Amino acid sequence: MKQNQDFILAAVIMAGGKGTRFWPKSRKDLPKQLLSIGTKKPLIVETVERLEPLIPRERIFISTSEDLAKRIQKLLPGISRSNYILEPVGRDTAPCVGLATAVLSRKIGSGPKRKVMAVLPADHCIGQPARFRKTLLKAANIAARHEVFVTIGIKPSGPSTAYGYIQPGEKLSGERGAFELKRFREKPGGHLAKRLLKQGCLWNAGMFIFQPEVGLVAFDKYLPKMAAGLRRIEAAADTRTQKRLIQKLFPEFEKVSLDYGIMEKTDNMAVISGEFGWCDVGGWDALYRLLGGDGERNVSRGSFIQVDSRGVYSDASKLVAAVGVEDLVIVESEDAILVLRMDQESEVKTLINLLERRGLKKFL
Amino acid sequence: MKQNQDFILAAVIMAGGKGTRFWPKSRKDLPKQLLSIGTKKPLIVETVERLEPLIPRERIFISTSEDLAKRIQKLLPGISRSNYILEPVGRDTAPCVGLATAVLSRKIGSGPKRKVMAVLPADHCIGQPARFRKTLLKAANIAARHEVFVTIGIKPSGPSTAYGYIQPGEKLSGERGAFELKRFREKPGGHLAKRLLKQGCLWNAGMFIFQPEVGLVAFDKYLPKMAAGLRRIEAAADTRTQKRLIQKLFPEFEKVSLDYGIMEKTDNMAVISGEFGWCDVGGWDALYRLLGGDGERNVSRGSFIQVDSRGVYSDASKLVAAVGVEDLVIVESEDAILVLRMDQESEVKTLINLLERRGLKKFL
Repeated sequence: MKQNQDFILAAVIMAGGKGTRFWPKSRKDLPKQLLSIGTKKPLIVETVERLEPLIPRERIFISTSEDLAKRIQKLLPGISRSNYILEPVGRDTAPCVGLATAVLSRKIGSGPKRKVMAVLPADHCIGQPARFRKTLLKAANIAARHEVFVTIGIKPSGPSTAYGYIQPGEKLSGERGAFELKRFREKPGGHLAKRLLKQGCLWNAGMFIFQPEVGLVAFDKYLPKMAAGLRRIEAAADTRTQKRLIQKLFPEFEKVSLDYGIMEKTDNMAVISGEFGWCDVGGWDALYRLLGGDGERNVSRGSFIQVDSRGVYSDASKLVAAVGVEDLVIVESEDAILVLRMDQESEVKTLINLLERRGLKKFL
Repeated sequence: MKQNQDFILAAVIMAGGKGTRFWPKSRKDLPKQLLSIGTKKPLIVETVERLEPLIPRERIFISTSEDLAKRIQKLLPGISRSNYILEPVGRDTAPCVGLATAVLSRKIGSGPKRKVMAVLPADHCIGQPARFRKTLLKAANIAARHEVFVTIGIKPSGPSTAYGYIQPGEKLSGERGAFELKRFREKPGGHLAKRLLKQGCLWNAGMFIFQPEVGLVAFDKYLPKMAAGLRRIEAAADTRTQKRLIQKLFPEFEKVSLDYGIMEKTDNMAVISGEFGWCDVGGWDALYRLLGGDGERNVSRGSFIQVDSRGVYSDASKLVAAVGVEDLVIVESEDAILVLRMDQESEVKTLINLLERRGLKKFL
């Protein structure tokens, strides 16, 4: 697949997430994006490999924490260390995307061509990568021609309550299949989800494609204090000063999400719909269903044997034997065994907090 | 504690059991008696140590299979190899006790003193060993004075349906606190158990104390074919011939239990009651209750952490984390993890059969 010659496309993969929902497999220093969750390779590796036919690896950037960078570098030997955008501390997604935008602004080429960057999550599954690239290229073309944030909304396969929704509005003038964005909707309840589906809403996959300058202008407008810092970082491009500035300024940035801080405020949004076998697996229960579990069948990764058991998801290196049980997640990691009632996956966070409070740090 | 000078007391510990109920901790070559089930040391080690103040180790014998003998020898360095009575194949308890009786008949001393042997299970817990020894000595005294099988019936702590019962009859003449045995009762249902309790029945702990010759005479009478072989083995005492004879004759002995083959038929039975914190833990559920589990509390061996979970028994070297679950047994062994609904412990046998059918021999 050839890039359109009218612009230069880069990607920033957002790989700073901590990921507690797949405990005990996921850990502080081994979050979801580093695991193979329903995939053959670690999610971040699949994310990079999926982009490479479209974007040369010189323009694939990784945004992550200093703590995680080393582990990710091992998984991605093809990505240069200078392509890492390192957060000295964890803030939220607005500072994270802001920093990436400021850094990329001067980094993805000079000259008359428009520069477009795609901000993409590191931990999503995509079943049909070629269709994904086609959609991404379409989004990039729109972003090159318009001064907007383009987001790819996922065509829902059902009224999921696990995802946020995007409501498309008027057609974007001059573009086929592109719409202005009417409204973001938080994860809905079951009834609302059905209504949103009928209204043609799409799932919010957190993918944003835009020209760096369009991004920075939005920061100037909606988060001016942060933007002042971002502009200083931008100006110091490719020097040691930039590193020092990031260390100094980033920790002071406001903790605010990109959606709340920018995307829900700007009118400058466009949406195109995508259909490429996307999913963002939220936890063990979701993974069980993704792998074909339906509450009756048992699904296992590793050896599993059962007597009179239903709806069990197991993932272990040892043999898992289930006797007379139902609706359980059984996961073994190197040092822990989780036994979780299937519909309680949100309580895994409570467990993590408990481990923290008890000082059981080695399990975090 | 000194032995009564009127007789010589020996013990045979029945340690041939296969024990599948504590899978995955118990295995074919690691049955219950070799494990620490609710005890600090392996059950067989506690059994031997409990006897030593009363019976010198030269007269403590171990009856087991050739397969298990080596592992047991490692656990019991103080017991001489010549004190092992090895079954070439597994039969049932009548051949097993018959063989031990035939071997011990000439082995526990000659001279005018009466010889008494105590046949004792290897895998029971006894909380008050000194009281146990006192009761055993009392039983041995009676066995030395009367030509009977003396059994120690356990004073029930409640109407358990997990044990068989013994119904005492008339007083044994000339002895205090000893009775003729009226009837053996199989494991009863709940209603019957309560009635048996009211009738003063005792739990059958499978402990039998008798003179070897009394034992062999009973075999002569009730299992004459087996007895013919046993008498040949007895006569060949302490020679290589005996070993060869055991190899040749034992595999042909009838598969029949001691209770069914002898004890339920002979009138020659006496019973004394014992109260020394006895239990025979039948499986994970029983162990959970023994360790204080009541269906609400969680009981764990090893590290355990829980969110909103009740009635969990866990035994693992890894951290076990339970979230939103109830009434589960979670046990980790070196190569397997069992997750069992608490009231389904009898299904562990089904699981073992399944492992066998699937050819998963390394887990047996």
